Amino acid sequence: MDATVKITGIGSYIPDTIATNESFISNRFLNEDGSEIKDPNPVIIEKFKAITGINARRYIEKNLVTSDIAFFAAEKAIAHSGINPETINYIIVAHNYGDVKHLSNQSDTVPSLASRVKHLLQIENPRCVGYDVLFGCPGWLEGVIQANAFIKAGIAETCLIIGAEALSRVIDQHDRDSMIYSDGAGAVILQKKKESGGIISHETVTHTRDEAHFIYFDRSNQKQESDKIRYIKMYGRKVYNFALTNVPLAMKSCLDKSGVSISDIKKIFIHQANEKMDEAICQRFYKLYDMEMPKDIMPMSIGELGNSSVATIPTLLDLVSRKKMSNHEVKTGDHVIFASVGAGMNINAVVYQF
Amino acid sequence: MDATVKITGIGSYIPDTIATNESFISNRFLNEDGSEIKDPNPVIIEKFKAITGINARRYIEKNLVTSDIAFFAAEKAIAHSGINPETINYIIVAHNYGDVKHLSNQSDTVPSLASRVKHLLQIENPRCVGYDVLFGCPGWLEGVIQANAFIKAGIAETCLIIGAEALSRVIDQHDRDSMIYSDGAGAVILQKKKESGGIISHETVTHTRDEAHFIYFDRSNQKQESDKIRYIKMYGRKVYNFALTNVPLAMKSCLDKSGVSISDIKKIFIHQANEKMDEAICQRFYKLYDMEMPKDIMPMSIGELGNSSVATIPTLLDLVSRKKMSNHEVKTGDHVIFASVGAGMNINAVVYQF
Repeated sequence: MDATVKITGIGSYIPDTIATNESFISNRFLNEDGSEIKDPNPVIIEKFKAITGINARRYIEKNLVTSDIAFFAAEKAIAHSGINPETINYIIVAHNYGDVKHLSNQSDTVPSLASRVKHLLQIENPRCVGYDVLFGCPGWLEGVIQANAFIKAGIAETCLIIGAEALSRVIDQHDRDSMIYSDGAGAVILQKKKESGGIISHETVTHTRDEAHFIYFDRSNQKQESDKIRYIKMYGRKVYNFALTNVPLAMKSCLDKSGVSISDIKKIFIHQANEKMDEAICQRFYKLYDMEMPKDIMPMSIGELGNSSVATIPTLLDLVSRKKMSNHEVKTGDHVIFASVGAGMNINAVVYQF
Repeated sequence: MDATVKITGIGSYIPDTIATNESFISNRFLNEDGSEIKDPNPVIIEKFKAITGINARRYIEKNLVTSDIAFFAAEKAIAHSGINPETINYIIVAHNYGDVKHLSNQSDTVPSLASRVKHLLQIENPRCVGYDVLFGCPGWLEGVIQANAFIKAGIAETCLIIGAEALSRVIDQHDRDSMIYSDGAGAVILQKKKESGGIISHETVTHTRDEAHFIYFDRSNQKQESDKIRYIKMYGRKVYNFALTNVPLAMKSCLDKSGVSISDIKKIFIHQANEKMDEAICQRFYKLYDMEMPKDIMPMSIGELGNSSVATIPTLLDLVSRKKMSNHEVKTGDHVIFASVGAGMNINAVVYQF
């Protein structure tokens, strides 16, 4: 049997601090042009909840930064796999904003977060190579695709791929979209194995002609604030339409390459961007096969955990694999799809067999 | 013949603005603890010149950011190779600080610089995937190693790898080390070919036990400045000793894996970190083979171009390939070594045949 590439360990870090929708009740939300929003805050929050499905999100403690939570998730994935950390060939950390300290607006990326995580893991082997990948929200899944290539190319056998982000450090309190964003970290160990299954196919696309700046970095909606300080921003409607058009196509392309029948797909682990958008994407994906979306195909954590960017998929995978999500489990032999979309605009998908 | 992976296009962007050593004559240099430096500035600058070999460095124009100069270098590499840019499978951009606007201290990495470059290149093909790699100064060479793996794994045939940095945007004017840093961009097109040569071997190591924070991000030496604003910083002596011990070993490991004889190496393209350090590294490397370092083995651009991080090697390669460096050229069939060291601490090397 050819070598396969399998997930042998999963871990995540979900911050303890819960910020409920009610915690935004006193925010002064403004439109992008700085004008007042007509709706009172309870209505703004209710509409937000109806579209995104988000009730609450998590924020890291003041003393932590992204590389710390990346380390917490990594420790758990290593323990879960049972490997000796000194045997890891690559530590790949996906993030988008680096380490941003509490009350700072500067991102710190030197050394790379991967080097910080390796330092915290106390791995000595210099041939354990650590680097960071910036690829929007699909960064963690792209790290998995890169690790898969390294294993196929014969330059790695064991990789640690982490997605970690602390979006609480880059949000504009005057922007309704700030309610979407959350903090978290998830990690997997990916290994060369002589078992069936593993990564069967993958697909990645980058759309930049009109789409490069759909998710961007810009000043506060509160125009009295310094124009020097910028925050995560997005054209929500454009992102929504882009995702609905392009994510189902990328998922179909990936599935068709895999040779796996759509009826054999047991779960879809989709980036927790927005509940309604995620559902619409999966419905359209099944429609491409003239099918209705099966019940319980999509585990969803966004309601209580929000959108933690690169961290959502490995966190969700961790929750499902530890049977923490009702009606959801994965068993050996199950085929699943991972899919993500985000800044870039990037989309990727992986067909995987447990 | 097995497929090989060859450089088919090279381009660089060297900013027009020259900052000579004399331009620092009025800086108020301070020690790391904020104390005054006894030497007057002419002496500080003379000592700096003697150690680093740097007479001048380049800074980008106020209206530019790192992704702009990455694009300039990419355009030239594409034109040099003659490829249709729509055939590029990967755009890999190595940098460490993202886009930092003039008079800003915020790094902007969303979307990724690779997405920005792809947008500026007006590439439409969504299967041209763009991502950024953070790996300290060796990031560009690591991008080359990653592209090589993608080609070997069968998921790419043509890759654009760019190193771009604008260190002028993150330097502390009160730190003597600020004189080291420069701005620039270099790029290559790497392609699957059926010719002999190309990438023969590569080596990468990441040392983080004691070394992770040798190059870091911290407040100004002028302690009256806000402690919220941080700059590129390094423990120069520690970096120097680390590099002298470990870079020659990594180069030797890479060369020994290649099967190429040391006497067949025609040039060493080493990261332009510090002239004296680079010379000492190469002398030690040859000493590992009981040899004297050959004359004219190391093209050096640092004297006039400074240390532009990820950009130094591809820029140097561009200068040599265009015969802009006296006593230096590369011919078809020549074996060379690329080697780099930097934040992480990371070291890598590639043995390559033109």
